[in-house]
Amino acid sequence: MLNLSSEARERVLKNVMKLEVETPSWGYSSGGTRFFVYDDPTAARTLEEKIDDAAVVHKYTGITPAVALHIPWDKTDDWPGLKQYAESKGIRIGAINPNLFQKNEYLHGSVTNYDPAVRAQAVDHLLECVQIMRDTGSPVLSLWLADGTNYPGQSDFRRRKKNLIDSLSKVYKELQGEERILVEYKMFEPAFYHTDIGDWGMATFIAQALGERAQTLVDLGHHALGTNIEQIVAWLLDMGMLGGFHFNSKKYADDDLTTGSVNPHELFLIFCELVKADRDPEIQSNVVYMIDQAHFDKPKVDGMIQSVQNIQIAYAKALAVDYDALEEAQMNGDIIAAEEILNTAYNADVRPLLAEAREQAGLDPSPLEAYLKSADREIRVARSK
Amino acid sequence: MLNLSSEARERVLKNVMKLEVETPSWGYSSGGTRFFVYDDPTAARTLEEKIDDAAVVHKYTGITPAVALHIPWDKTDDWPGLKQYAESKGIRIGAINPNLFQKNEYLHGSVTNYDPAVRAQAVDHLLECVQIMRDTGSPVLSLWLADGTNYPGQSDFRRRKKNLIDSLSKVYKELQGEERILVEYKMFEPAFYHTDIGDWGMATFIAQALGERAQTLVDLGHHALGTNIEQIVAWLLDMGMLGGFHFNSKKYADDDLTTGSVNPHELFLIFCELVKADRDPEIQSNVVYMIDQAHFDKPKVDGMIQSVQNIQIAYAKALAVDYDALEEAQMNGDIIAAEEILNTAYNADVRPLLAEAREQAGLDPSPLEAYLKSADREIRVARSK
Amino acid sequence: MLNLSSEARERVLKNVMKLEVETPSWGYSSGGTRFFVYDDPTAARTLEEKIDDAAVVHKYTGITPAVALHIPWDKTDDWPGLKQYAESKGIRIGAINPNLFQKNEYLHGSVTNYDPAVRAQAVDHLLECVQIMRDTGSPVLSLWLADGTNYPGQSDFRRRKKNLIDSLSKVYKELQGEERILVEYKMFEPAFYHTDIGDWGMATFIAQALGERAQTLVDLGHHALGTNIEQIVAWLLDMGMLGGFHFNSKKYADDDLTTGSVNPHELFLIFCELVKADRDPEIQSNVVYMIDQAHFDKPKVDGMIQSVQNIQIAYAKALAVDYDALEEAQMNGDIIAAEEILNTAYNADVRPLLAEAREQAGLDPSPLEAYLKSADREIRVARSK
Amino acid sequence: MLNLSSEARERVLKNVMKLEVETPSWGYSSGGTRFFVYDDPTAARTLEEKIDDAAVVHKYTGITPAVALHIPWDKTDDWPGLKQYAESKGIRIGAINPNLFQKNEYLHGSVTNYDPAVRAQAVDHLLECVQIMRDTGSPVLSLWLADGTNYPGQSDFRRRKKNLIDSLSKVYKELQGEERILVEYKMFEPAFYHTDIGDWGMATFIAQALGERAQTLVDLGHHALGTNIEQIVAWLLDMGMLGGFHFNSKKYADDDLTTGSVNPHELFLIFCELVKADRDPEIQSNVVYMIDQAHFDKPKVDGMIQSVQNIQIAYAKALAVDYDALEEAQMNGDIIAAEEILNTAYNADVRPLLAEAREQAGLDPSPLEAYLKSADREIRVARSK
Repeated sequence: MLNLSSEARERVLKNVMKLEVETPSWGYSSGGTRFFVYDDPTAARTLEEKIDDAAVVHKYTGITPAVALHIPWDKTDDWPGLKQYAESKGIRIGAINPNLFQKNEYLHGSVTNYDPAVRAQAVDHLLECVQIMRDTGSPVLSLWLADGTNYPGQSDFRRRKKNLIDSLSKVYKELQGEERILVEYKMFEPAFYHTDIGDWGMATFIAQALGERAQTLVDLGHHALGTNIEQIVAWLLDMGMLGGFHFNSKKYADDDLTTGSVNPHELFLIFCELVKADRDPEIQSNVVYMIDQAHFDKPKVDGMIQSVQNIQIAYAKALAVDYDALEEAQMNGDIIAAEEILNTAYNADVRPLLAEAREQAGLDPSPLEAYLKSADREIRVARSK
Repeated sequence: MLNLSSEARERVLKNVMKLEVETPSWGYSSGGTRFFVYDDPTAARTLEEKIDDAAVVHKYTGITPAVALHIPWDKTDDWPGLKQYAESKGIRIGAINPNLFQKNEYLHGSVTNYDPAVRAQAVDHLLECVQIMRDTGSPVLSLWLADGTNYPGQSDFRRRKKNLIDSLSKVYKELQGEERILVEYKMFEPAFYHTDIGDWGMATFIAQALGERAQTLVDLGHHALGTNIEQIVAWLLDMGMLGGFHFNSKKYADDDLTTGSVNPHELFLIFCELVKADRDPEIQSNVVYMIDQAHFDKPKVDGMIQSVQNIQIAYAKALAVDYDALEEAQMNGDIIAAEEILNTAYNADVRPLLAEAREQAGLDPSPLEAYLKSADREIRVARSK
Repeated sequence: MLNLSSEARERVLKNVMKLEVETPSWGYSSGGTRFFVYDDPTAARTLEEKIDDAAVVHKYTGITPAVALHIPWDKTDDWPGLKQYAESKGIRIGAINPNLFQKNEYLHGSVTNYDPAVRAQAVDHLLECVQIMRDTGSPVLSLWLADGTNYPGQSDFRRRKKNLIDSLSKVYKELQGEERILVEYKMFEPAFYHTDIGDWGMATFIAQALGERAQTLVDLGHHALGTNIEQIVAWLLDMGMLGGFHFNSKKYADDDLTTGSVNPHELFLIFCELVKADRDPEIQSNVVYMIDQAHFDKPKVDGMIQSVQNIQIAYAKALAVDYDALEEAQMNGDIIAAEEILNTAYNADVRPLLAEAREQAGLDPSPLEAYLKSADREIRVARSK
Repeated sequence: MLNLSSEARERVLKNVMKLEVETPSWGYSSGGTRFFVYDDPTAARTLEEKIDDAAVVHKYTGITPAVALHIPWDKTDDWPGLKQYAESKGIRIGAINPNLFQKNEYLHGSVTNYDPAVRAQAVDHLLECVQIMRDTGSPVLSLWLADGTNYPGQSDFRRRKKNLIDSLSKVYKELQGEERILVEYKMFEPAFYHTDIGDWGMATFIAQALGERAQTLVDLGHHALGTNIEQIVAWLLDMGMLGGFHFNSKKYADDDLTTGSVNPHELFLIFCELVKADRDPEIQSNVVYMIDQAHFDKPKVDGMIQSVQNIQIAYAKALAVDYDALEEAQMNGDIIAAEEILNTAYNADVRPLLAEAREQAGLDPSPLEAYLKSADREIRVARSK
């Protein structure tokens, strides 16, 4: 069982470069924790530099052709100009991310607020984001709510749920064609007693209440410790409710660590579910893959390319699994054989295959190394000077 | 704010004895951990003794008129006789709990098993339990599944989900009239990599797939650490999907500790959601309250009466909350006032009110003390002699 | 068991006002999360206003005669003047808290940094804080380190441990007389892969390595989920290593929630250990009690008074426990009786006793209510106008 | 960075077969959860069969030359005979594991019990185990305590700590020469409110209180979720207090899953600390490596060989790391380079190196495959027939 079969190698080569991953504009500017924001001398300082950085990541990796925007952080007076700028750099605008947490008004929630005026303000912002989708050609409104409370009694769960659905319905009914709203969930932070969309169940019930243009978004860092995320992914795929992914990682809390840095095996198992679903004619899925990280202690572009590489390694291993043999082992109740079939792929070194696939795509076989030696990096290092 | 208002006192007195809680037959026999099962000399040794014990708990507490059964642990050749025996002791038969985990066949799951013969066996057992419901006058099939896996690759989440729904549908279509199936969820144990019904979302999606006679059952010990259980309760109430409760407690794992022993404040907050829903004409609910504990280190009847007392204390405090004032504070965004309104009730000593309510119901004001001094306890102490 | 004995009431009345708790200067200025810092119009804007606020909390509660300072946030050119100003307001300077996390130099750690120049800078700051202790009459250096890493391989645990002890030794040897250094631990945040002083064991081994003027500080929000904190408190007391407490609360993460807001029963159990140790002639302890909270969504002084009240309620209940009866129940192996003895105190309403004790001390019986109606609050509400 | 250097390959080849791992006798007999014990038709039924199974695992893996015993499960009247039997099969007796949890007397603890008679009984059992060490030539008493409580108030932490140290001191003083006692810790289970030796700090303080023949034992499944185990390992190595390891795995709870099945990356990081310590002349360590698993759903010998393979893969990857380059990257503050240096080894396929090392040792290159096709397995399959 030491080597991958030629079929497995073929599957990897054929598919691994097809996985496209959006990168986030906010991952290119300086970030930090609530205790301190570090100066990254290489960080982007303007919207254009963020676009440049996203384009550079795409230049080296070949699989990140879209940059997700955050409104108002990335707001501009000239959306057509921005779209054109991005295209001139070889990328497109990805998901539009509204901001419903950086105003004093949102202390008691945004779309869930007890105050109808605040809810209306939040809905207006969401509608503005829908317009930005159209102005930039983005098909996805990616909704993360910071709404929640810190203390028992502070608010009423059911009233907030009603306000949430009422508010989002006003946005949802403006969607048309291929436009989608992706509903993200998060267990905690910035609210620490309760979060209004706290788990995949809540997100999915809300998406179902809205309609078929609404789906659930899974962020790898947003679950309770011990949660089997791959099972949730499988359920959402089975229900036709998986709309998007935010890649990142966490060990205990925070969700802004490099994807695959803490438990790469879990990332592999999640990709196994995605690959299995792709093989299943009964599953129709249209999943938007996004990185949502802000490496506050790594140079931004470097960390982003590293993240893409980690994602590709996990995906390549998942592609290399012999799922027919796996199913056979499962139907024989052979636990050890099934586990070993996964391990055969997981323990393989897929980096040579990745290098080959990249070269076939006209890329350097080692994106991070290539970037580190490049003039593109020099430019970024010189930014603060 | 030191004293409860007379209205609050009135609400407690009027309602606190109306909360009926089933006790579990399996909580009266000897139990333990996977490391050891302790001999409790006072434990019930026969089905009749379990009924006797449940009846004694009802005799002292006045609010536990039903005993849940576990099949086959409580199996008998004479269901009418058992029903009659219970009635002669002053109680009725409560929820019927199937056992889909104590056979070698279930190593790879029961209703989710890859083997259709095992699934059929599991369905047959569930149908047998439906028949027992009718034979005993029980309106509730309380379904806890131990199905899950210990290792990545061992099985396929989506195939198991399909098998699960297919199997349960065969049982569901036999239900009629007021009969209900309650679908329980549990994060882990006895499976440690994945559990097929792992959280409230999974349970609720399954219940919805089955139909309106299916609802979700919340067991207080079955959540990830840090989960806001009262929020889940509120959502289920809002969705009309809360069917039942299993009271118990946990600190890290295991769910067989005395209700209210670890975090009584959480129990209070959960009851606040239940009381608020009762006040809301838009919420139609029909919740079965059950204790699901097996105190392996406490004398069984003693521990069960103590549990009932803890439940009543939490419920009484929740009844004592001034919800109109709470809503007003919430609508003013006054976090501190809202919290203090909850605390006014939580910090009150409701035991005198409970004593009064019990006396009004013809009971001893201190059930545990009364039982400890009683001949009923003498009988149990003498069991092993 | 409904009422507290007269002895219990006496113990509460006699002792409850003796528990002194420091409040933190940083709890009086505006705060937030990494996502947003909310404007609190009532927040202190200057060092003097922080002192004023701490003094007002003491005025109403009577048990917070010291304010902890954070350097450099509270830095002044005139320490004697500050000391005098505090004294003129009726309070004294409490623990001095260094800041080893708000500089770019500390990206890779402060006293653990691989770079000797950064370590020297950190040591210099700590020595500066020792001097401030002397200038302000503070007996305690309260050391919280943010040192840690976000990624595997980023640093070397053992080298950092050595650097940590070497650096702190240089500070420790400057201590004299009654001066103490309290070593705090925290499981995670702001570092998310590892924290150099991650648990009570690490903190205590370091304190032991330093010498008898070093002890461990327990912060209630800094443990892994499921940790039995009261056991750790008991061990530290037993070892003579408990030096201080940071009161606050958490449900999943963050440690800046109001003490007692999430699990007041746990706070009660922790106080039971402290009260038991006070009764034990073999235990010599000198514990500094501090609140370490920054309620970003509550008006600051209001939230601080509420916190003090919660602490007093928990402490009063712990004082009310009949420990002789408890020990007897324990030595009889009577689990239920032991638990009920705790519950007798926990379920009692100690607020009337607290009111009485406050009145005996010349205070308003309801500090929070009194403050809310006061001119002191008016002044704070007018601050932003 | 795609390939391992020849030096790295050399290090793996030279060292990987030197890691010796004890296997547990109890891992060869049928096991289960508190809900059910499954019949494994291949399981060992007698002490001799357990020895046989351990010997077979050694025959195929070449690195498991010792079998740990559990007393009284493995008790015999003829210790010299047993020792000889093991030697005739090519293995020796490893750690002796006492049992202080399978008696009704231990309901309230063993060496911590309030009752001196129970404590004396526990000490007697431990002394019996010391005698068995001598009779079997085992150098290690491996102490896991199930002592703990389920309810607040049930016992007194400090009294139990005192009893614990007093009891163990009586055993410790009987040790001589190279004999060691290894003190294990566990966060929870079978006690669910508190465990007397709940974390590495408690275990290590106890070991230090006993003396230099006492050290700490790390079991991979015994930590709070989110704990950085590799850091604890590094601290224990640094303190000279790491005595032993129990390999296994967990996702949420339970600790009897196959080592490396849930998070193989964490296992790799732990081995990195062990390899780094081996390279450090300042660190003197003598660590006993043991598997402590009971795969209740895998055929026993199959699962044990699989576990050994997983351990070797993790160890080989840790050996392959370029620690000089890692240290250089760390001293440059280059987080990404440091992480990539680890990843270069982690992502490599070390199985061909392992195959080569095994063949050099005269073994089959694929132990699990070889065993599955062997007559040795046939014998086990036939056991139940």
